[in-house]
Amino acid sequence: MPSEDLKAEAAGWLSTLERSLSGPEPKGVAALFREDCHWRDFLAFTWTIVTLDGRDEIAAMAAARAAEAGAHGFALDGEPKRTAGGLEFWFTLSTAAGRGRGHARLREGRCWTLLTTLRELTGHEEKRGDTRPLGTVHGAVRDRRTWADARAEDARLGLDRQPYVLIVGGGQGGLGLAARLKQIGVPALVVDRHARPGDAWRSRYRSLCLHDPVWFDHMPYLPFPDHWPVFTPKDKMGDWLEAYSTIMELDLWSSTACRGARYDAALGRWTVEVDRDGTPVTLHPQHLVLATGMSGKPNLPRVPGQDLFRGVQHHSSAHPGGEAFAGQRCVVIGANNSAHDIAADLWEHGADVTMVQRSPTLVVRSETVQRLGWALYSEAALRAGISVDDADLIVASTPFAVLPQMLKPVVQRMKEEDADFYESLRAVGFMLTFGEDETGLGLMYPRRGSGYYIDVGASGLIAGREIALRSGVGLAGLTEDSVVLDDGSTLPADLVVYATGYGSMTTWAAELISQEVADKVGPCWGMGSGTARDPGPWIGELRNMWKPTTQEGLWFHGGNLAQSRHYSRYLAIQLKARFEGMPVTVFDRPGLSA
Amino acid sequence: MPSEDLKAEAAGWLSTLERSLSGPEPKGVAALFREDCHWRDFLAFTWTIVTLDGRDEIAAMAAARAAEAGAHGFALDGEPKRTAGGLEFWFTLSTAAGRGRGHARLREGRCWTLLTTLRELTGHEEKRGDTRPLGTVHGAVRDRRTWADARAEDARLGLDRQPYVLIVGGGQGGLGLAARLKQIGVPALVVDRHARPGDAWRSRYRSLCLHDPVWFDHMPYLPFPDHWPVFTPKDKMGDWLEAYSTIMELDLWSSTACRGARYDAALGRWTVEVDRDGTPVTLHPQHLVLATGMSGKPNLPRVPGQDLFRGVQHHSSAHPGGEAFAGQRCVVIGANNSAHDIAADLWEHGADVTMVQRSPTLVVRSETVQRLGWALYSEAALRAGISVDDADLIVASTPFAVLPQMLKPVVQRMKEEDADFYESLRAVGFMLTFGEDETGLGLMYPRRGSGYYIDVGASGLIAGREIALRSGVGLAGLTEDSVVLDDGSTLPADLVVYATGYGSMTTWAAELISQEVADKVGPCWGMGSGTARDPGPWIGELRNMWKPTTQEGLWFHGGNLAQSRHYSRYLAIQLKARFEGMPVTVFDRPGLSA
Repeated sequence: MPSEDLKAEAAGWLSTLERSLSGPEPKGVAALFREDCHWRDFLAFTWTIVTLDGRDEIAAMAAARAAEAGAHGFALDGEPKRTAGGLEFWFTLSTAAGRGRGHARLREGRCWTLLTTLRELTGHEEKRGDTRPLGTVHGAVRDRRTWADARAEDARLGLDRQPYVLIVGGGQGGLGLAARLKQIGVPALVVDRHARPGDAWRSRYRSLCLHDPVWFDHMPYLPFPDHWPVFTPKDKMGDWLEAYSTIMELDLWSSTACRGARYDAALGRWTVEVDRDGTPVTLHPQHLVLATGMSGKPNLPRVPGQDLFRGVQHHSSAHPGGEAFAGQRCVVIGANNSAHDIAADLWEHGADVTMVQRSPTLVVRSETVQRLGWALYSEAALRAGISVDDADLIVASTPFAVLPQMLKPVVQRMKEEDADFYESLRAVGFMLTFGEDETGLGLMYPRRGSGYYIDVGASGLIAGREIALRSGVGLAGLTEDSVVLDDGSTLPADLVVYATGYGSMTTWAAELISQEVADKVGPCWGMGSGTARDPGPWIGELRNMWKPTTQEGLWFHGGNLAQSRHYSRYLAIQLKARFEGMPVTVFDRPGLSA
Repeated sequence: MPSEDLKAEAAGWLSTLERSLSGPEPKGVAALFREDCHWRDFLAFTWTIVTLDGRDEIAAMAAARAAEAGAHGFALDGEPKRTAGGLEFWFTLSTAAGRGRGHARLREGRCWTLLTTLRELTGHEEKRGDTRPLGTVHGAVRDRRTWADARAEDARLGLDRQPYVLIVGGGQGGLGLAARLKQIGVPALVVDRHARPGDAWRSRYRSLCLHDPVWFDHMPYLPFPDHWPVFTPKDKMGDWLEAYSTIMELDLWSSTACRGARYDAALGRWTVEVDRDGTPVTLHPQHLVLATGMSGKPNLPRVPGQDLFRGVQHHSSAHPGGEAFAGQRCVVIGANNSAHDIAADLWEHGADVTMVQRSPTLVVRSETVQRLGWALYSEAALRAGISVDDADLIVASTPFAVLPQMLKPVVQRMKEEDADFYESLRAVGFMLTFGEDETGLGLMYPRRGSGYYIDVGASGLIAGREIALRSGVGLAGLTEDSVVLDDGSTLPADLVVYATGYGSMTTWAAELISQEVADKVGPCWGMGSGTARDPGPWIGELRNMWKPTTQEGLWFHGGNLAQSRHYSRYLAIQLKARFEGMPVTVFDRPGLSA
């Protein structure tokens, strides 16, 4: 079809949508969608992050929200394309609150998937490019206030005046969000228990590098330079975060532990007790963001004999690296990312290593996943004019509900291309999975945030029997000098590493606030797929992440660097709208919460 | 003329040039140029930075250098354009050593100006984008060396092994050059006397901001983000430099003073004595780069009575800011940038300020100079697709020799647009100049690096008589409580600020090495224009800057941020070629040196 015809079809549908949504009573919106249809909204209509599945949900949301949202000015953005997904196109839109971008896929004239986003608030746009600050005041100003004066005043945030937002955790998530809030003028304080920004990375095992490539990992505003390595080493990441917090002028208290928080609904504010390098300080933010990492506290299995064991035992998060274990017998309990990394590191330092795999692991080769899975984030994508922000929106344009049908062929191709690789693992008894529905890493990660290994070398050691493997067995106990497995066999051991993962993010809420609040809010992460560790009901978006929770003033922020980058934008806008006292009505329906 | 015809003309000239330059004996090169012609070469043919004026010089250079340079593969780059300068076009070229870009302006078929540059060395290209490092080694590696291990080893540079290059001075110039050298694998150590990178900025008077706008100021590899202020406040600049040195993994010794350096021609290396935070260390680099600022040591006038004066007196470089001087009588000696900034800052703090102007000053309004003078470095330029690097090359495409005819109309326009402004200054007796030949700031700066003020507010205070002015008089002496001027008048004073400028960069060479070497090398900066403070003979390029000097192994680096950014590329390549033992023959002719 000629490009003008595609444009006409796309523009026609868009203007019908706009017309249907306008007026006091939206009419005929559902009829613009196919029977199997999904409308994903990031704030623009709902002031939350939600996917509405099917015409009924869409009609209900439009009825509830269209009038107040005041969406208008829908306009095609770029050239519509005919793809396997249908007629695809981008558009821009405005709402009563601000401006955003959208994406649609039409099939036979009706919409299959729709994305709408609110990306900036009118009157509160970021000051960049032409609108950047001058940095000084030209002319004569008595008692001029310099940049250094302003920063010195910022340093009193939390002492002389209260932050509007308190962010607990100064990793990439907390710092990126703080940067977003700084740029739109929301007073936010980050507290972090480490001595220096980046120490959470520096303190991990020495061989650790990011498993995601650099193109995927940029933080807001300050992209990694072009010479930055593909896989950032952990100490370099630590240095980057430290520099980032300075360059972005973040208000950060290091060496500060959060002791407890409680919400006063009457006052609409939190009381948060922190220990700032030995000095207790009470803070009263209106919003509390837990950016304590997408995982919760380390899972330490409790088995008989741990008190008898004479060797060294620790959780993977406390593992110092392999230096001290040359020639020693090391048992790694677990078979996911950390287990593989630590096993390989121990082997590289000359240890005698055995991995204990209880259940199947999803393994993907780093090179393959970069080529097939992350093509949107690559030099090739950049050359094709796809910016990181474009890529983030392209990813967002696909609701979780339709991901399986898109991911299955990719997984199938990976299995075929890497058949020899997988066979070599099976040959030594390694148990493989590609997800219960063969959707691979793309859904394993959002469903449960665990269960996989991106191979950067350990698989070859396992296949080559350099790292011994015991699979299909679990840990039963320890003796003075051995690990006892649940088939009754034993492994002599000088070191036991429990690479047994982490609890849910919600454990932080229970610890910092209360079990009652944690229970009220419910679990974080996962979207109710009904697969292992992600029980239903179906939510369609990650539970409790970057959006209002059932606890007023409590927010969760985290995920990998790409998620932290993209979703921090929407979280920052939600906080800004509240800070400015804008009317914010969060759309909700039974079953959709969390 | 249709674009195809322009292309054909440009490509035709280019291929004739290539043919003329090839073979053992270049023939007919001069005939390709007009009588008034200029060939500016950055390393590609000459391994120095030089402008050849006229056919004779061009023919001589081609005869001496074309065979060894081995230039080939000239190819049009982008669309030729017909402009006031003639037929203008960009091209790429290769040489025996590497690759570069060029620019030409033809008039009636012959060349008026030609630029040729060598921008990377074959086999030693920067690793960026597709060729960036992996950051880790996938697979199993016994005794793996991590990034942190490598950085720890780097930290021993200067102790366990010698740097190939020692850079004295860790301001924007030294750090930017060190970053370039790091990217192409030349071991370079920066020594800086301050405790922290950026302290040279932090320690200046409190109101200081960059007078050049952000678009002009980017450092290599890590551009300022889009929200960066137009005029960077000095403390923010300090923080940026500190972050830059970490992010770019520079090898830097802070709190390190350089005590002395001598060159051993037989060994081909320097012996440099430094004091590293109280510990003497002897270094043996093969190359020594003085990046100690484009100015030399402060000029402190010696006049009678300075020992009697009971108030405070100091050079502008030691001025702490106006806080302590509210209500006091302050005399600022001088009428250039620092004098204006300090006078305004004192006024803003409620001091009673008098500026003493001995000779005329070039004043340009910041807003006007940004609009008319720096259009290449602006949001508008970026929108037009002109990157910072493009802008640097566009600037380089105009030899100093032809700048006057390009600048005069701009100065004329500024004078007209800002006529009221200039009249208001004249009305209070302020002495103005626009350069001896009315070429304005664009040549005042490279000729003498002083003599001007970019107005950000002080001029209004002077015109409004808020800052008192004594013009046409100089400092004669001091008494116990007054400044005595050379017309016999006196000014009662509690504070005297000598905003009397700095010596030449060469003073650093005299101090660190010897007066003998300083004399041999001759002055830095200026191109022999024959105007005040820039005596002839005509050199056509800045003396001794970023290119070989008559002292083997001695280099000067500095200038504003834009110059440091662009020229550090060529300085780094010169050092890399020597480090790799590539054949490097520096073109020279009598009178061209320095």
